Amino acid sequence: MIGLGPGRAGTMTGDARAALAAAEVVVGYKTYLALAGDLIEGKEIISSTMTKELDRAAAAVEAALEGRTVALISSGDPGIYAMSPVVFELIKAQGIDLGPKDLEVEIVPGVAAVTAAASLLGAPLSHDFACISLSDRLTPWEVIEKRLDAAAGADFVIALYNPKSRGRDWQYGKALEIIGRHRGTDTPVGVVGRAMREGQTVRIHDLGAAAQAEVDMQTLVIIGNSNSFRLGDRLVTPRGYMNKYGNKWQGEEG
Amino acid sequence: MIGLGPGRAGTMTGDARAALAAAEVVVGYKTYLALAGDLIEGKEIISSTMTKELDRAAAAVEAALEGRTVALISSGDPGIYAMSPVVFELIKAQGIDLGPKDLEVEIVPGVAAVTAAASLLGAPLSHDFACISLSDRLTPWEVIEKRLDAAAGADFVIALYNPKSRGRDWQYGKALEIIGRHRGTDTPVGVVGRAMREGQTVRIHDLGAAAQAEVDMQTLVIIGNSNSFRLGDRLVTPRGYMNKYGNKWQGEEG
Repeated sequence: MIGLGPGRAGTMTGDARAALAAAEVVVGYKTYLALAGDLIEGKEIISSTMTKELDRAAAAVEAALEGRTVALISSGDPGIYAMSPVVFELIKAQGIDLGPKDLEVEIVPGVAAVTAAASLLGAPLSHDFACISLSDRLTPWEVIEKRLDAAAGADFVIALYNPKSRGRDWQYGKALEIIGRHRGTDTPVGVVGRAMREGQTVRIHDLGAAAQAEVDMQTLVIIGNSNSFRLGDRLVTPRGYMNKYGNKWQGEEG
Repeated sequence: MIGLGPGRAGTMTGDARAALAAAEVVVGYKTYLALAGDLIEGKEIISSTMTKELDRAAAAVEAALEGRTVALISSGDPGIYAMSPVVFELIKAQGIDLGPKDLEVEIVPGVAAVTAAASLLGAPLSHDFACISLSDRLTPWEVIEKRLDAAAGADFVIALYNPKSRGRDWQYGKALEIIGRHRGTDTPVGVVGRAMREGQTVRIHDLGAAAQAEVDMQTLVIIGNSNSFRLGDRLVTPRGYMNKYGNKWQGEEG
């Protein structure tokens, strides 16, 4: 299971390239297959649409059990709202044993979408942070709401995955409202669309106006904590070095 | 500011390699300079010890203001408990303008230590998760404690950075105790030391026994949520596909 990184070829690791090269069969959503580019030329390809995660996992496991070397690809990292848990859930349900005699599974981590988005914004994640998906397709909304409230109340930086989709349009506004109970309307919010892919957008809003931002399934939204600040067109969450050492340091400089 | 990834050369992205190659000056902690290997041969090197983050940031900014192309390197991702916020804090304190005429800053994201550790464990992060550093050098312990309690209470997977250091030995046990108020003693806990570096260790404990695990500043500890399970020697947090679609899917298979 290979994480390709967020987008263009340069975001892929050497390990991911090598693992793709070694694969006989490549399984993936068609957009991700495009990201893999000419690294997968000449290989057997099994592609599917976005909502068929379980089918993709099953196809990959089946081909691997036939003794073939299979690359199941995700964008970003395969373990963050991606394919690796789906494969393990399936392996468990089918009672397949893990190991060299049965099924060997290796995971090649990638640059996660959230760190790619953060790098474009500046340094928003730089203190304790929480990642929350707003998709209630597999998770009850009450659980998501509780997590939003807890994370906001404890002053975590909050990264929202899957803020909105075609059939799911109110969760994003509701999430900002919950976070707004704990944080000022001027809290900076970074909104990154299609990080490191064609059509990339990077914007910073105030929390009070962030509900108006255009978001979709390829958008990452990062809400600063109570110490986050804007610096020019960047969003920064300080670790606190200047608070603790700043005076001394400035003193040394005169 | 370049993220080298967690360890061995294969975990570095193409973008990171290219950015290192383009740099005239490389600034970094000496362990990270070793990770960069022969990519930095022949360049001016400014190295420092671990606790001198502010000195490293200042040296990088100073060299960049002289008009040189500077690579400030971090292991993992530069924005997760690493150098990029320190640089921005310094830039803010010194009133330096960001932009092509003054100081241009670009961040090259890397595979974060937490995703590398997760990939070695299986798929522990695969639902909503929170990252918390146990270092109270710059953050009051009461803030950390509140975050541990909130994250555990809302059933986040929890990744602990910096669990223990030479001068800081009780926070890790205390953190597990706080989490244990909300989660069963049999909750699986992944403990990964030196992920993807020489001396790597990967272990899974029960929460009730995890306090006895050996941990240090290069250890990542990942505590599962209430649905996480062990599968052979792996730790998995399900996304819930088998719950929702499993019966139908098994039905299709007969």
